[in-house]
Amino acid sequence: RGIRVGYTPDVLTDATAELSVALLLSACRRLPEAVEQVKNGGWTTWKPLWMCGYGLSDSTVGIIGLGRIGQAIARRLKPFGVKKFLYTGSCPKPESAAEFDAEFVPLARLAEESDFVVVTCALTPATQGMCNKDFFSRMKKTSVFVNTSRGAVVNQEDLHDALAHGRIAAAGLDVTTPEPLPTNHPLLSLKNCVILPHIGSATYATRSTMAVLAANNLLAGLRGEPMPHELLL
Amino acid sequence: RGIRVGYTPDVLTDATAELSVALLLSACRRLPEAVEQVKNGGWTTWKPLWMCGYGLSDSTVGIIGLGRIGQAIARRLKPFGVKKFLYTGSCPKPESAAEFDAEFVPLARLAEESDFVVVTCALTPATQGMCNKDFFSRMKKTSVFVNTSRGAVVNQEDLHDALAHGRIAAAGLDVTTPEPLPTNHPLLSLKNCVILPHIGSATYATRSTMAVLAANNLLAGLRGEPMPHELLL
Repeated sequence: RGIRVGYTPDVLTDATAELSVALLLSACRRLPEAVEQVKNGGWTTWKPLWMCGYGLSDSTVGIIGLGRIGQAIARRLKPFGVKKFLYTGSCPKPESAAEFDAEFVPLARLAEESDFVVVTCALTPATQGMCNKDFFSRMKKTSVFVNTSRGAVVNQEDLHDALAHGRIAAAGLDVTTPEPLPTNHPLLSLKNCVILPHIGSATYATRSTMAVLAANNLLAGLRGEPMPHELLL
Repeated sequence: RGIRVGYTPDVLTDATAELSVALLLSACRRLPEAVEQVKNGGWTTWKPLWMCGYGLSDSTVGIIGLGRIGQAIARRLKPFGVKKFLYTGSCPKPESAAEFDAEFVPLARLAEESDFVVVTCALTPATQGMCNKDFFSRMKKTSVFVNTSRGAVVNQEDLHDALAHGRIAAAGLDVTTPEPLPTNHPLLSLKNCVILPHIGSATYATRSTMAVLAANNLLAGLRGEPMPHELLL
């Protein structure tokens, strides 16, 4: 018999959904750029279009992977005045989609019609490199791309090209390839790309819950009892 | 007869509420600090409590001034798992509060019980300097303060002291005194203070709506007709 493995499922859904919304809003409303303007003296008199961004009112939001986290994000975005939710994935999930009236569409149509694209799918052979040149070229020039799943779902060179040439408005990434991202990476030179150091689950409450679950798994394992959450292969 | 004055009411509620939530999440989840860590090489291996923040799950949110914008903020925060809404102001507003089960409380109790305090009241003689040393000293050490109303509601020296000495966890300000804030202001040296250059209404859609309303007011005024939105004193 091999080594028993415990894990801590489902505890980071809320924290990650919250961080995803924070990242989406930071990217579309240009918060890091605005913070920088305050510090470097770029903030002067009122100008009609200075530091303007794209809001969620009347928007179409496309979610790639409407799992637990994708649904938790949609639930939080809805009261911002989202007009329409689209989603894609390996198959339609009518029960999950009903709460948001979300429509199942092919990936290409999701890219073409969304004002905001949020990636929350698992990394699999089917999703690796899925957000590539073709995908970004279908997106609107005014649209915002957010990835809080796994870095390798995105072709980062293609994303860099799309952002640098204004083919999309902005991006927010909590995940990259590799992690940590080298500090001289081209994506870090773009004003319209907000990159976070994989902090989706980084709240004191979530990390504390994870620690308690891990300790209880361990104690049960040491006693030879069933673990509260055991990985069964 | 004097000069007729047109204005553009109610058009910035959604954009300002959205920005308020963006600022609250940026402050509590420490986004500008995290962005900086990615750029300066502070992002290394995984550490249990690195870059952790305070999330909205099971929190108490206190809103100072439950007007149009305050309500729009509460509506957006609710699905983040907020446990309880408190509010204060010149008088109870049971009709506005019902949607959020929000409880009317005195200012001191709001400070003491809230995990997040959001200021969205008007600047009046009664609210000027209202968020002062006494107010911040009542807040929890783990709480987050957000102001998107007018800078003068806050005593900035007292806020600086509270942030610098860890008497509150973080603050987010879209408004300051004066505006623009001098680039050598002490608040700008604090990692736990996110300051934006008054961009509450800065979305292309909102600014465009404002421009169209202003133009229609002007055209009506030139024709000697009633303005769509005229300031009547």
